[in-house]
Amino acid sequence: MERKIYLENTPLEKAINMFFEKAEGYIKYRKTEKINSQDSLGRMTASPVFAHLSSPHFHAAAMDGIAVKAEKTFKATELNPVRLKKGVDYVEVDTGNPLPEGFNAVIMIEDVVSVDNETVEIIQPAVPYQHVRPIGEDIVATELILPTNHKIRPWDLAALLAAGIDFLEVYKKVEVGIIPTGVELVPAGTVPEIGQIIEFNSHFFAALVKEWGGIPHSYDIVPDEYEVLKKTVEKALSENDFVIINAGSSAGRKDYTSKLISEMGELLIHGIATKPGKPAILGFIQNKPVIGVPGYPVSAYFVMDFFVKPLIAKLNFQQLPYAKKIEAVISRRVVSSLKSEDFIPVKLGKVKEKIVATPINKGAGVIMSLVRADGVMCIPQHIEGIEAGEKIKVELWKSLESIENTVVCIGSHDPLIDIIGDLLSSHYSLFSLSSAHVGSMGGIMALKRGECHAAGIHLLDAETGQYNIPYIKRYLKDNEVLLFHLVERIQGFLVQKGNPLNIKNFADLIRPEVTFINRQKGSGTRLLLDYKLKESGIDSKKIIGYNREEFTHLAVAAEVKAGSAATGLGIMSAAKAMGLDFVPVCSEHYDIAILKEYMNLESVKAFIEIIRSREFKEKAEGLGGYNTEKAGILYYEG
Amino acid sequence: MERKIYLENTPLEKAINMFFEKAEGYIKYRKTEKINSQDSLGRMTASPVFAHLSSPHFHAAAMDGIAVKAEKTFKATELNPVRLKKGVDYVEVDTGNPLPEGFNAVIMIEDVVSVDNETVEIIQPAVPYQHVRPIGEDIVATELILPTNHKIRPWDLAALLAAGIDFLEVYKKVEVGIIPTGVELVPAGTVPEIGQIIEFNSHFFAALVKEWGGIPHSYDIVPDEYEVLKKTVEKALSENDFVIINAGSSAGRKDYTSKLISEMGELLIHGIATKPGKPAILGFIQNKPVIGVPGYPVSAYFVMDFFVKPLIAKLNFQQLPYAKKIEAVISRRVVSSLKSEDFIPVKLGKVKEKIVATPINKGAGVIMSLVRADGVMCIPQHIEGIEAGEKIKVELWKSLESIENTVVCIGSHDPLIDIIGDLLSSHYSLFSLSSAHVGSMGGIMALKRGECHAAGIHLLDAETGQYNIPYIKRYLKDNEVLLFHLVERIQGFLVQKGNPLNIKNFADLIRPEVTFINRQKGSGTRLLLDYKLKESGIDSKKIIGYNREEFTHLAVAAEVKAGSAATGLGIMSAAKAMGLDFVPVCSEHYDIAILKEYMNLESVKAFIEIIRSREFKEKAEGLGGYNTEKAGILYYEG
Repeated sequence: MERKIYLENTPLEKAINMFFEKAEGYIKYRKTEKINSQDSLGRMTASPVFAHLSSPHFHAAAMDGIAVKAEKTFKATELNPVRLKKGVDYVEVDTGNPLPEGFNAVIMIEDVVSVDNETVEIIQPAVPYQHVRPIGEDIVATELILPTNHKIRPWDLAALLAAGIDFLEVYKKVEVGIIPTGVELVPAGTVPEIGQIIEFNSHFFAALVKEWGGIPHSYDIVPDEYEVLKKTVEKALSENDFVIINAGSSAGRKDYTSKLISEMGELLIHGIATKPGKPAILGFIQNKPVIGVPGYPVSAYFVMDFFVKPLIAKLNFQQLPYAKKIEAVISRRVVSSLKSEDFIPVKLGKVKEKIVATPINKGAGVIMSLVRADGVMCIPQHIEGIEAGEKIKVELWKSLESIENTVVCIGSHDPLIDIIGDLLSSHYSLFSLSSAHVGSMGGIMALKRGECHAAGIHLLDAETGQYNIPYIKRYLKDNEVLLFHLVERIQGFLVQKGNPLNIKNFADLIRPEVTFINRQKGSGTRLLLDYKLKESGIDSKKIIGYNREEFTHLAVAAEVKAGSAATGLGIMSAAKAMGLDFVPVCSEHYDIAILKEYMNLESVKAFIEIIRSREFKEKAEGLGGYNTEKAGILYYEG
Repeated sequence: MERKIYLENTPLEKAINMFFEKAEGYIKYRKTEKINSQDSLGRMTASPVFAHLSSPHFHAAAMDGIAVKAEKTFKATELNPVRLKKGVDYVEVDTGNPLPEGFNAVIMIEDVVSVDNETVEIIQPAVPYQHVRPIGEDIVATELILPTNHKIRPWDLAALLAAGIDFLEVYKKVEVGIIPTGVELVPAGTVPEIGQIIEFNSHFFAALVKEWGGIPHSYDIVPDEYEVLKKTVEKALSENDFVIINAGSSAGRKDYTSKLISEMGELLIHGIATKPGKPAILGFIQNKPVIGVPGYPVSAYFVMDFFVKPLIAKLNFQQLPYAKKIEAVISRRVVSSLKSEDFIPVKLGKVKEKIVATPINKGAGVIMSLVRADGVMCIPQHIEGIEAGEKIKVELWKSLESIENTVVCIGSHDPLIDIIGDLLSSHYSLFSLSSAHVGSMGGIMALKRGECHAAGIHLLDAETGQYNIPYIKRYLKDNEVLLFHLVERIQGFLVQKGNPLNIKNFADLIRPEVTFINRQKGSGTRLLLDYKLKESGIDSKKIIGYNREEFTHLAVAAEVKAGSAATGLGIMSAAKAMGLDFVPVCSEHYDIAILKEYMNLESVKAFIEIIRSREFKEKAEGLGGYNTEKAGILYYEG
């Protein structure tokens, strides 16, 4: 076993400086092209643009009316109107018409009295050149229309055409080669087998490159073979301004990227002090930048953001738009490494006049953490972590307005929450739902800390056998809380089709051949399990897998589906969704708790309306395992 | 003569409400289409999207290392390492590899000691499922990936592909028909004859529609014939979501648009209480919106902004981005009509910690006023005007950062100022120059009021015969001013090629056949003229055209070129640019005055560097009529 194990740990800022200092020489010599002005929207001028024609290029009527010779009107007064003869003393003109030869002023139609078909009367003299658009009023031939390095907007394009400029010189758009590598990859659109992974990163990168103003060119997937990769890199370099090699950037056995860059050109950096993003590779071949981007999509995103985004901007001679940042309160403690600068996607919500940021640090492989993120926070290298309640700066990924219009619902996981969110945003385009699955107790604590508007909870009180109310009384006694029914739902064992191990009740869980997958502490389902185990006098230590935790019903179902656990406790819709069988155990109350003070928010009102709607009830019943009879009924105020 | 003369004067807000209330019925039924996920960047989901596949869809190694059976490692300690046999106890795995059947944990390569080719040693036990990416860690099949009405970002596209979603339902992009009308129009790319105008509006509108997220379809220019227009409108309606008819919207003789809408459908509004934009037409044909947009480009822009922009957003189910507004101090008095809401493009600059807005109200026909604008201010209908120094809200068209990096140079016009601006932005991509031509005195007063950094001036003192210094001493005595040489430039008479009227000196200006075009009061050239007339004992009243004023040398040259004046006083470069002859009269000092306090700004330093550069001097000399020997030399501090 021989592998290169250790990467460098270059601080991000240093890496950026080294990279762009070296890239400067290449950036300077940008290619230009002549394009039709009609196609120039969004392009950057590469040289100053001067007008070819004046606009207007003749004296033109600026009003609808009559063109006159001003000197013939000088004597007109209300008492002594002047009569003008058509064709001799006046000519009818519309706005934009050229002033006929020998005429030098325009009288508005409103000030003209028609006498007969050939004669009009006026009662005021015309000043020479009144209501005339003089030649060059807008543009004078030879004047500067646009300077160098100017991004062409719609009105610039209009001015170019008005000035008779049919072609102009712009910078060529940056072309970026994207090479996906890895034997395990299959193209998007293929159904992957075990061990195969859908290659989506090249599409992800291409979309980013497009958004950042470049033209992406993706190449076929390169298996992990040095010579094939080398040929592809050579081709991509000849066809693009710079090249991105995806994956092959960590220190695994078949990771050739850094070796290849070293041999073909110069390897500048391999390994930066960020998390995620550490295995980034920066180098140059034939003076062109070559960037090795890690395979995990969240790592990949940040490496793209750190290096590819500013590189495209520089090559396009455009300023990077300043990232919009806001101050937010962090909702839970985040531990950070002293070895790296940490970049963490966060969800944002506005609750009680403060913006609350909830970190989504699920690891570099979870693309959904970007999908669910509303922004990104950064923890500098020398800081060990941030405590809950501390203020942090967050780079915004959506508008502050849309964050203010978001209902934040934190608590137990149920697919119904997603359905409510979808109905909310499809019926109220202003509003959206942001949900986080932290278990029922997590939801109650989030309500208490003012970090969410609503919490989905199903907490069974072991002493009273009552749902939710005892917990609200205990933990939210200082708040005015409204409790709404959402559904009664059936909990049961998720098992393989046909229930091959014949799992029927809690006692079956301690059979040696039965492996279990559990939910996390603080979830209602975990409480239910512990309540039932205690009731049946079963020792949880005897359950194989009791300590393996998942955060959602669907994740539990997926584990059972994959065979890594024989069963788990969960809801029927999850079993149905994953094609599993379901052994009902009991039903429970799943409620929505809302602080009373939030009920005057339009977004929260809409949220309740959705829960009460026929459409929601139908969709919920359609999933199976839910009774929605009381959905939306307020049944407790505390 | 029969014409419809009066338009309605519907307040903008009322017009918007009426229009969108009526449009609502059409907006509701948006068409959708199924597209490939790979092409979905920026599109809006029309239904919720659920995962087809889990990701990963198998348990995968999360690290490079070895897959092991955890139970075989439990006894490993530093003192008692455990040896593992290849193929039996361990399998080498790279990140992403599937966990081999029967194995349930991964040990990082860093923690593995190689003994021989077939044996490794470990000194720590592995916990089951450590460094394993469990099935569905990122995405669980059937979970909601994106809700309805969600705009797809690069990471959303990646998640769609990772979840095995190859196609999805999105709203069809809004298609907008654009019909240019008018016999005077010729297509862009044609050289227009007298009376002809280049049709650039359809390209302008198409660019706006693209920027706002629609697909434009432009039709051929329709001459002002009712039946032809009707046929084109019918075709455009059948091919688009809504239709824009350009021009034909005022009350001229051949303006058929409102009549046509009335006859084909319903005319809702003709005439709104805004300036510019008054002749807007809003109607519906076959329930589809039809918008008549005025021909003047600035009017057109605002009508597009008021109605077309929000219509596209609504049809795309997207929120309009909130316009970014800032507070600015207005630099001069603006008079406004009580009959209308006024929208005025402004130039912005940051001087002395305040943002100064200078109105560019040159009329609805001047597209360059949009090109030069940094933002737009609005004066409500019930306000008669705004005094200089008052605070106003300005909608920003560029970033605040770029405004802060702009050198504001106000004063006398010279094409050299444009050349300096172009060199500044091409050599310093951060910086730009904003210039306004208000004459030398205007520049001095702007310096005094703290509205510009620099002023270009050439003011001849009638008593001393000295340039500039006497004016600075008189008007800027409370400021520390630096005066830099720019050029010595030659002033003279601009005349037709061959000088047919043989104009040689100031005495020739009072000859009856010599018509004159003057510069505005307060300009250095006007002062020079008056000085020379007085010197020669010539009565300005005898000069035909003495009261016709233009604001730039090029505009004077254009008038002479068009034959509407025989001559004007101006600079050689203007004559050369317009292909005129030039009769030198005298040379003068054109200087740059800068308040000392601005010299510590990087942007102002760069501005001075440019003036001193060889490149600037070469370009200036190339224009003819300039001596740049002393350019950039500081010669007076006051």
